[in-house]
Order: sequence, then structure tokens, then C-alpha cells
Amino acid sequence: MTAIDGFWAVVPAGGAGTRLWPLSRAGAPKFLLDLTGTGRTLLQGTADRLRPLVGDRLVVVTGTRHASAVAAQLPGLPTTQLMAEPSPRDSMAAIGWAAAVLEARDPSAVVGSFAADHLIGDQVAFEDCVREAVEVARTGLLVTIGIEPTYAATGFGYIRAGSALPGRPTARAVEEFVEKPDASTAARYLAEGAYRWNAGMFVVRASVLLDLLHEWHPDLASGLRALAADQALLEQSWDGLTKIAIDNAIAEPAAAAGRVAVVPGTFAWDDIGDFASLAGLLPPPADGGPTVLGDPDLVVAVDSTGLVVPGSGRVVSVVGLDDVVVIDTGDALLVTTLERAQDVKAVVDALKAAGGSDLT
Amino acid sequence: MTAIDGFWAVVPAGGAGTRLWPLSRAGAPKFLLDLTGTGRTLLQGTADRLRPLVGDRLVVVTGTRHASAVAAQLPGLPTTQLMAEPSPRDSMAAIGWAAAVLEARDPSAVVGSFAADHLIGDQVAFEDCVREAVEVARTGLLVTIGIEPTYAATGFGYIRAGSALPGRPTARAVEEFVEKPDASTAARYLAEGAYRWNAGMFVVRASVLLDLLHEWHPDLASGLRALAADQALLEQSWDGLTKIAIDNAIAEPAAAAGRVAVVPGTFAWDDIGDFASLAGLLPPPADGGPTVLGDPDLVVAVDSTGLVVPGSGRVVSVVGLDDVVVIDTGDALLVTTLERAQDVKAVVDALKAAGGSDLT
Repeated sequence: MTAIDGFWAVVPAGGAGTRLWPLSRAGAPKFLLDLTGTGRTLLQGTADRLRPLVGDRLVVVTGTRHASAVAAQLPGLPTTQLMAEPSPRDSMAAIGWAAAVLEARDPSAVVGSFAADHLIGDQVAFEDCVREAVEVARTGLLVTIGIEPTYAATGFGYIRAGSALPGRPTARAVEEFVEKPDASTAARYLAEGAYRWNAGMFVVRASVLLDLLHEWHPDLASGLRALAADQALLEQSWDGLTKIAIDNAIAEPAAAAGRVAVVPGTFAWDDIGDFASLAGLLPPPADGGPTVLGDPDLVVAVDSTGLVVPGSGRVVSVVGLDDVVVIDTGDALLVTTLERAQDVKAVVDALKAAGGSDLT
Repeated sequence: MTAIDGFWAVVPAGGAGTRLWPLSRAGAPKFLLDLTGTGRTLLQGTADRLRPLVGDRLVVVTGTRHASAVAAQLPGLPTTQLMAEPSPRDSMAAIGWAAAVLEARDPSAVVGSFAADHLIGDQVAFEDCVREAVEVARTGLLVTIGIEPTYAATGFGYIRAGSALPGRPTARAVEEFVEKPDASTAARYLAEGAYRWNAGMFVVRASVLLDLLHEWHPDLASGLRALAADQALLEQSWDGLTKIAIDNAIAEPAAAAGRVAVVPGTFAWDDIGDFASLAGLLPPPADGGPTVLGDPDLVVAVDSTGLVVPGSGRVVSVVGLDDVVVIDTGDALLVTTLERAQDVKAVVDALKAAGGSDLT
């Protein structure tokens, strides 16, 4: 298979990954980390996954603080394709800025946005899905890739699919985007079968994206197109751009207007939202002890299960704890359970509240 | 109160405290550590406690490996009162060697043996108890101090007390020494009321101790007396001495012969056998979180109880774990529970089995 003509991948690389503290920090966010022990960071894995679809047509949008780290991790990335935001302005500005630059470069360009810190299980299914999404996008629709739910997840937003698009093998119209549900609602979504997980993957012609944006947020669309025309405006205009997520800015109103399609993704997908999620993604240990991310020779486990990350070079020993999470780094240690993995954020909040901490 | 004439304290300072790993190591054993956050190590606390009873008449018997650390911790200790064993030969050789040296120096000397790594709660009650024990010892008996049990402990040996000694306020004859009991036996001991915990404290005239030893282990008694007469024999003779605990060597047979008395100790006593024991000895935290030994500013606890020792300078965070034990040191980390504290030894065994570890 060859790369898709005129298709660009836009990779927004932001977010600290607070629930993966102390591995993930503001200064060393999740996307810069190798969380799977493969020797490639999540950002590198994302680029590797997209390369067969886009060739060298990859744009990364990140904060100025992380631009040099991104460049170091993706040495082949041209500097013109590494876009550094002066400050975080949420996903609409990040993706829209890249789309505006690409629209100016190639008016027929199709862009696909793919977060820098997600994992995907089946490369072939992913590529097939994106190819279908690009074809639908060329017809002028905003296309999202909706992951087939495998359990009643409460941690993701959902996409409700409607009728099939004429002449398309899998694509359907999107009826609406819905927020993260509670457990009973999630169970109903799973049972009904019309709902997909919203993985934040959008495929759309660059010009359609900006035209849709212009309908609901004309100032933001104009601002981004002006920025694309004159990069020198960046410092003075960036902080004045509307801070809004792409879902709220265009996906939801466009769905209500019947202009969004969904291509179902049947591949495994995970946003590695916390350590419980990470534990589930790593290969289970052969001897039945805890899953280890790192050097297993550094871990001594007795009657224990869960996740151990020996990240400081020290020996980590665990005795008599099931589903425990032990994250050992050079300057901070976290001990919790798979069940309480979501609450790691409370530690980061406490450290920030205590002030003066360079650990977050 | 003044020091007791002719009374010497002998402090055997040995044992690695394996169940307190990774705080306690072969190279940094329990008695050299400040486990209570008082600024004094257990050895120093033992010396402090004995000083009112013996003045400067304190002898420490330790391994050659730890002699310099002991000297550094007890700077006032004369070099002649710091006895360095070439190798561990168990408690009979250690205490007997000191007794033989003191017997040669003062034939009427009374010696009391007190482990270097125990804690005692009530100094006044302890002193009263030892004074009574010394008076009884002067009559020629081997006297042990038996701690009044406060719960059905399975981790200690017991002493069964018999009839009261004539004219003594509290001392009784010892009927027998018994091994660590199982839980139901321990409960029976507690209910019967005649049993005391064997804390390994023996008070006896030095000459009586060696004469008793001569009855059951004449070679060992002769060897120790010869060593006391000529220190130059140490290297050549030490490793040939019988390796036996003082309980087995003399306390048990002497009890059977009606020559042992017990003075009940009503003070709190603990041998800090594991981290559960240590947690119980430290002041509980004011805010209801885990007990912290060390700098509380290094601990961030959310919905957690237990014991945290932030011993490496790093931040230790714990989320959602009750009765957890987290021991953080510069080169090794232990995570377990109060309930499994006894099983820490399994980690040390595993590290030794893996070989080449300098962590134990």
C-alpha cells in the first residue's frame, strides 16, 4: 500500500497526562515517554503508525516548551512541519492552525488529526479505516473515526451513528456527539450498538474544516487563516484566539447540521488514561506476578500482582499486595492500586497546592 | 538513684534485623539505626537506658565489621569495653566472653545482658526491675526479667513462673522456658497468667554464669575463661567455640535444676521485630494518615494508612491503600502491608539467592 495522495496527518502533541504522574510531568509529558517498553515513545509510535498513510506529510503541533524534544524524537521532521504554539489554546486552535497552513499550501488537502499519546492495536485495520475516512472526507463531510466499544466505558465521549452513507461499505452519518456517560448510560450505549467511542480522530478537507469553523466561530477561522498567510503574526495574535475544543467548536454543530460521518474503527484503541489502562496494555508477566514496565531484574515480587515501573534503577520489592501500582522515578515515588489509578491526580494537585514543587 | 555497685551491663550488638529490610542491612543492622525518630540509634538508646544503673560499666560485644560504627556511636566507651567478635558464635559465646573478662577483673561482679536493639517504655519501672534482679542475682541465682504479656504474642518465647522467692517482693522461681507458641497456646498462656515474655535479659554473677556454663558445656566455659586470661588467643580459639544460644546453653537446664528466678517486668517492651511492630511504636499522625518515620513534608498520602519511611529524600505518594508499608531508601524500595510485614524476609532471601546483591 502507498501513502494517500494529498493526505496530511496533524498530530496535536499536548497535555501533561497528570494521571500518569510521576512518569508523566508537565516537563516530560506522556507523548514524549516510552510507556510500552518498545523503545519508541508514544509520539514516535504515532508517527510510525501514520507514515504508511501520509509518507512525509506529517505536521506536529506542540507547545514551544516541547518543540526541541519533539524535533529530537522525530529527526526527519522538517522544521516547517513542527508548529510551536506560544501557549495552549485547546484543540481547535491547534488543529485549525495546521489546517489553515495546509489549506494555503494545497487547497485540496485532506487533513487527519491523531493525538500523539494514544495506542492502536491493529495497524492494518487502522489503515483501512483511515483510507475509507479520507475518501468520505473528499466528498466534503467532516469524518470521525468511531471506535467500536468493547466494554461500557465511562471515561470516553461517544458518537451516536445514524443511517449508512449511500455507496459506502462502513461509513454512517453521525447523529450526535455525547459527553462521557455514567455507568448505566454507558451500559445502555453498549447494548444499543449505535454508539462508538470518540477517539478525537477527525478526517476532513482542510478547507472544509475552516469553512465549518467559519460558520460557528468566524473570528477564530479568520484569525487562523490570517496566521497561515503571515507567520509573523503568531506572537501578537495567538493569545487572542478563542480557546475551544474541536468537538464543541465544529463537530457537535456540524453533526446537528447533518454534515458529519463516522467510519467505525474495529481496531483496539487506548488513550492510556491512567495506570490501570497502562497495565492492561502491557504483556502480562509469564510468572504471574505484577506486570513490569522496565527491567524485570529490578523487581522482587512476593505474592503480588499489579503494575511495577522500576524507573530509578533501584530495586523495587513488593510483598503481599494484589493490584498494586508502584511507580518509581528518580525524584518521586507513587504507590496506589489499579482501582484508585484515576485518583493520582489528587497527588499532583496536592503537590501543586503545597507550592514550589518542581515534581509536577 | 545511683549506679549499682559492681553491676556491669553487657550489650550484645548483633543480628541484621532482616525483617526491617531495606532500612536494616547486614552492613547497617537494626541496632545502628534511629528507628524511632528520636535522634538516637537503638544502640545509643540502650546505652542511655543502662547508664543510670551501671554508670560507665558498660560492655558492648559486636562483630568486627561493626566495631568502628559502635565506637563512633558511643564515643565515651573505653576501647577495653568494646569487644569485637571475629565471627558470630551466638549469644552464649558473646555474653560468656564478656562475663569471663569481668569475672577476671572483679570476682564478685554481677552482669546483666540487654540486647542492643530493643525498646523499653518506662525507664523507672525498668530500673526498679533491674535493681531487684541484681539483688536476687547476688544470692547465686540466674535471674531473668520476664515481661508481663499484654497480648497473645506468637513471636516471643515465654517463661513460666513458679512460686515466689522467700522475702522477695516480686521475684519468682522459673519452672521452664518455652519456645514461641502457636496462637491458641499463646492465648492460653495469656489467660493462665503464669507466663512472661522472654526478652533475653539475664542478670547473674559473672562467676555463677560461667560455673553454670561449666556444668553443661565445660569446653565452652574453659575456652571463654582462657580467652579472658589471654586476649591473644582470640583469633586462634574463637571459631572453635561452641555456637549456642544462652537460653539453650544454661537458662533451660538451670531452670530445670531450680536455679533460675524471674523478676516480672511491667514496663512496655518491644524487640521491633518487623515494620508492623515499628508502626505500633511510633506516634500516630495527627491527621489520620499513615505514620511517618522521617520528614512528613516528603509524604503525600490520599486515603491511606500504615507506615511510610521517606528515607531517600524523594517524595513518596500513596493513594488509596490501608495498612500499607512503604520503605524508601537510596538503593531499594519495599512496598508491603502491616499484615505481611513478617514476610519481608522473603525479599531478602530472594535477593541473596539472585546473588551478587549488595543490598542485603
